[in-house]
Amino acid sequence: MTDLKTGQDEDNLDTNVAMLPPGSTIGILGGGQLGRMLALSAAQLGMKTMIFCPDPLSPAFDVTPNKIVAEYDDEARLIDFANAVDVITYEFENVPVSSVELLAKFKPVAPGARALSIAQDRIEEKRFLTMNAIAVAPYKPVNALEDLIKAIDEIGTPAVLKTARMGYDGKGQRTIKEPKEAVAAFSALNGQPLVVEAFVPFEREISVIVARSGNGEIDDYTAAENVHRDHILKTSTVPAAIDELTARRASRIAHQIVGALDYVGVLGVEFFVVPGEPHPTLLVNEIAPRVHNSGHWTQAACITNQFEQHIRAICNWPLGDTTRYVDVQMENLIGGEVEHALTDLKEGTQPHFYGKAEVRRGRKMGHLNRANPKTDIN
Amino acid sequence: MTDLKTGQDEDNLDTNVAMLPPGSTIGILGGGQLGRMLALSAAQLGMKTMIFCPDPLSPAFDVTPNKIVAEYDDEARLIDFANAVDVITYEFENVPVSSVELLAKFKPVAPGARALSIAQDRIEEKRFLTMNAIAVAPYKPVNALEDLIKAIDEIGTPAVLKTARMGYDGKGQRTIKEPKEAVAAFSALNGQPLVVEAFVPFEREISVIVARSGNGEIDDYTAAENVHRDHILKTSTVPAAIDELTARRASRIAHQIVGALDYVGVLGVEFFVVPGEPHPTLLVNEIAPRVHNSGHWTQAACITNQFEQHIRAICNWPLGDTTRYVDVQMENLIGGEVEHALTDLKEGTQPHFYGKAEVRRGRKMGHLNRANPKTDIN
Repeated sequence: MTDLKTGQDEDNLDTNVAMLPPGSTIGILGGGQLGRMLALSAAQLGMKTMIFCPDPLSPAFDVTPNKIVAEYDDEARLIDFANAVDVITYEFENVPVSSVELLAKFKPVAPGARALSIAQDRIEEKRFLTMNAIAVAPYKPVNALEDLIKAIDEIGTPAVLKTARMGYDGKGQRTIKEPKEAVAAFSALNGQPLVVEAFVPFEREISVIVARSGNGEIDDYTAAENVHRDHILKTSTVPAAIDELTARRASRIAHQIVGALDYVGVLGVEFFVVPGEPHPTLLVNEIAPRVHNSGHWTQAACITNQFEQHIRAICNWPLGDTTRYVDVQMENLIGGEVEHALTDLKEGTQPHFYGKAEVRRGRKMGHLNRANPKTDIN
Repeated sequence: MTDLKTGQDEDNLDTNVAMLPPGSTIGILGGGQLGRMLALSAAQLGMKTMIFCPDPLSPAFDVTPNKIVAEYDDEARLIDFANAVDVITYEFENVPVSSVELLAKFKPVAPGARALSIAQDRIEEKRFLTMNAIAVAPYKPVNALEDLIKAIDEIGTPAVLKTARMGYDGKGQRTIKEPKEAVAAFSALNGQPLVVEAFVPFEREISVIVARSGNGEIDDYTAAENVHRDHILKTSTVPAAIDELTARRASRIAHQIVGALDYVGVLGVEFFVVPGEPHPTLLVNEIAPRVHNSGHWTQAACITNQFEQHIRAICNWPLGDTTRYVDVQMENLIGGEVEHALTDLKEGTQPHFYGKAEVRRGRKMGHLNRANPKTDIN
């Protein structure tokens, strides 16, 4: 029977997909903190890992003996990589789709090229969501100044002009408070496909971390409430201050997205919560086809954290337990903040440091999961 | 004020000991599953690791780019190792004391040579405990057959004859059910220092995992109840079925031991619980100067697991939170059991596989932490 709540067809899980056994090798594209934490969970599950990253000082290189230092479009090295591993995943969505397509000729790649391609392009992403009847903020593609002026006229100000591709942590964005700022914003970002989005008067941002395994099983974690500072995630808190119906709706949308994408792995869905009566409206801000910074709290609160869940999913293992046992506030340590964190390890704190040699402004250096006994049942 | 309960002098913690910062290198002697899990926790804390182990197929070699393959008494390689790391620890107590003493000339080694030396020798261990007024089962050192016969006469049967050194998982032990079995038992183990212990009619075995940091802070975890099969730990369950006073007394003894040893790191204390009114008697069976198999449940139940706690302790960090948030049964996967474990990952199961290439009879291949909501306040 199809589970109407989630779109998951419980009786139709594909149980013929073979589990990748311990001792196999997981190939990870990207050597940052997400790759590093994925490799640590892979090791927990008895897997070997190989990291592919162009930066010779990648933090993930410290947790495996197997690495390839090469550019993401180096076809010969990509093929070496594929030949050395059993399954391939990635820690960030700016890996070239063509590289993933090449790798997929040799070994399974999860998540697949379609999810990657959609997540790489804000316009594609919004189209995909809209086609699936999932609400997003009003937006318009912008290829020329006149597109922008017309769009502003339609969706109003404030609005945010963004590059359609390769943006993260607020890079490639300009806020347009009044129509007269449109020209300057366009000039600053011109030369690439852009999209302008209405600024929605949200009361809070939340995110849901959802997983879908190779055999179609879907599960998600409690929604987290996210606070950004200078466009970079600063804290994620569980439980989010949302009502139960809103939590259920966010969960349902997350399930729907991974189902529609035929997705394999962990995926993060960010939402704006816009005030409304009797319940707020949820708009999807963006999706990330990977483990997500706003899911780091699962390391302190759940039997199976998001990193283990991702490895389980891409290895066709049954998904793990997403029950949340404590309240957590996850705090990112950005730039120099890492230097004070050590002297402030309060009771209940689970620190994670990424082993990055150089402290840089705006660079994520680590995070703290601060746990407290659970206050509610969500 | 001295904390009478634990012997810990709260106001006299040595706060001058410098914390070893993230980016430092932890040297680990021993490349088995304990070394591997220590390395994973070291990575969580931003540390690099180097593993020293004679076995080129060591499981821990899969989780670090830095290794030395050499015998534990290879002085030149030990010195190379010491020069490459910032602090040294070990995953098992059969590292030669002379090697640890050599290493200690170059870099801090924690736990120190004294704890190691005591834990390596059952007779030394029992003398140390007895001198600290901690009860152990009746025992006698045995150097000759007449020692054994005299001892049996004194402590009675059943009794267990053990090699004083290098025993683990039931290796080097003979049970003597009746006096006439003494000769055969002695012949089987003769040629090395032995000890005969009275068999105590215990109702259960428990263990306490305790940590003491470089600045003298002490903390411990909930006592676990242990079940052995063929002399190998099969399950550890928290909470143990013991009364609150017994739990407090076990905790106090564990604190006392690390205090008396001026210990740095995590230590496991195994107890026999012998029935008595109104409360059972606790006898210390043995101590292990390292992370301990019966502490693996902390990975599923605590904000800070025993591996992170050990790394914190030896790096002079504040100890982490030992609060237990769920009930857990840890089950060791021994030999071929690992092959069925994958198809039986029930809800609430956190699997750990050690990446050992070869399945051997009696070999620990992995463990499962099975979690359930908490049933009591211990």
